Amino acid sequence: GYNGTRLLKGPDLLKSSKDALFVTKKDYLKSDWCKTQPVVQRIKEEGCRSQPFVNNFCYGQCNSFYIPRNVRSKSQIGDDAFKSCAFCKPRHADWKVVTLKCPGMNPPFRKKKVLYVQQCKCITEVLS
Amino acid sequence: GYNGTRLLKGPDLLKSSKDALFVTKKDYLKSDWCKTQPVVQRIKEEGCRSQPFVNNFCYGQCNSFYIPRNVRSKSQIGDDAFKSCAFCKPRHADWKVVTLKCPGMNPPFRKKKVLYVQQCKCITEVLS
Repeated sequence: GYNGTRLLKGPDLLKSSKDALFVTKKDYLKSDWCKTQPVVQRIKEEGCRSQPFVNNFCYGQCNSFYIPRNVRSKSQIGDDAFKSCAFCKPRHADWKVVTLKCPGMNPPFRKKKVLYVQQCKCITEVLS
Repeated sequence: GYNGTRLLKGPDLLKSSKDALFVTKKDYLKSDWCKTQPVVQRIKEEGCRSQPFVNNFCYGQCNSFYIPRNVRSKSQIGDDAFKSCAFCKPRHADWKVVTLKCPGMNPPFRKKKVLYVQQCKCITEVLS
């Protein structure tokens, strides 16, 4: 059995998945954060002098939730829920070219493309 | 070009992806949270009386990060990074049976299985 009747009187009990979805979207979850902070990457290639490249990394705490849905039919037995996980990751990124010096090679340099992270943000991924 | 030499002198600059990974794991990201809160689901089936079922939903703010990796070879051009997103979701869940009254049907009841969320937790998903 379940103890629904007791809990139904509690002030914290939400009446449906839609209420729960509302809570997760509006009230409690506003203050998530995602930082963009510099980090040095070393760009390497055999026969070349490695070179530092100042990139950014992302870290933070973003909103996520898992809300059971109403069970409507037999076919919906299973893990049926609203699921969402926001991920602190690059919002803007672009390719930059780094030229390495490669003495003894012909030509004596190599160009490498590096993905440069400009800005990070909590971005929602809806999970299946 | 890039402005690495200037930034290299800054106190906040991390020297490698490994340092960055360390920061995201140890220092800043400890206080993530994931709540377990009751919500009423309605269990329905055609020809039966719907019934409330007190389940739980999960919501919170969990750690996530995206850290560019060192570029080592030509083949690694692309979006090569450590990526991790922790997701506030059920740690423990089990199936419960709900019996609906279905007057006029034979037998006059139907049993339905519902996934009951016992406890939620930030669980790390490593993304590809």
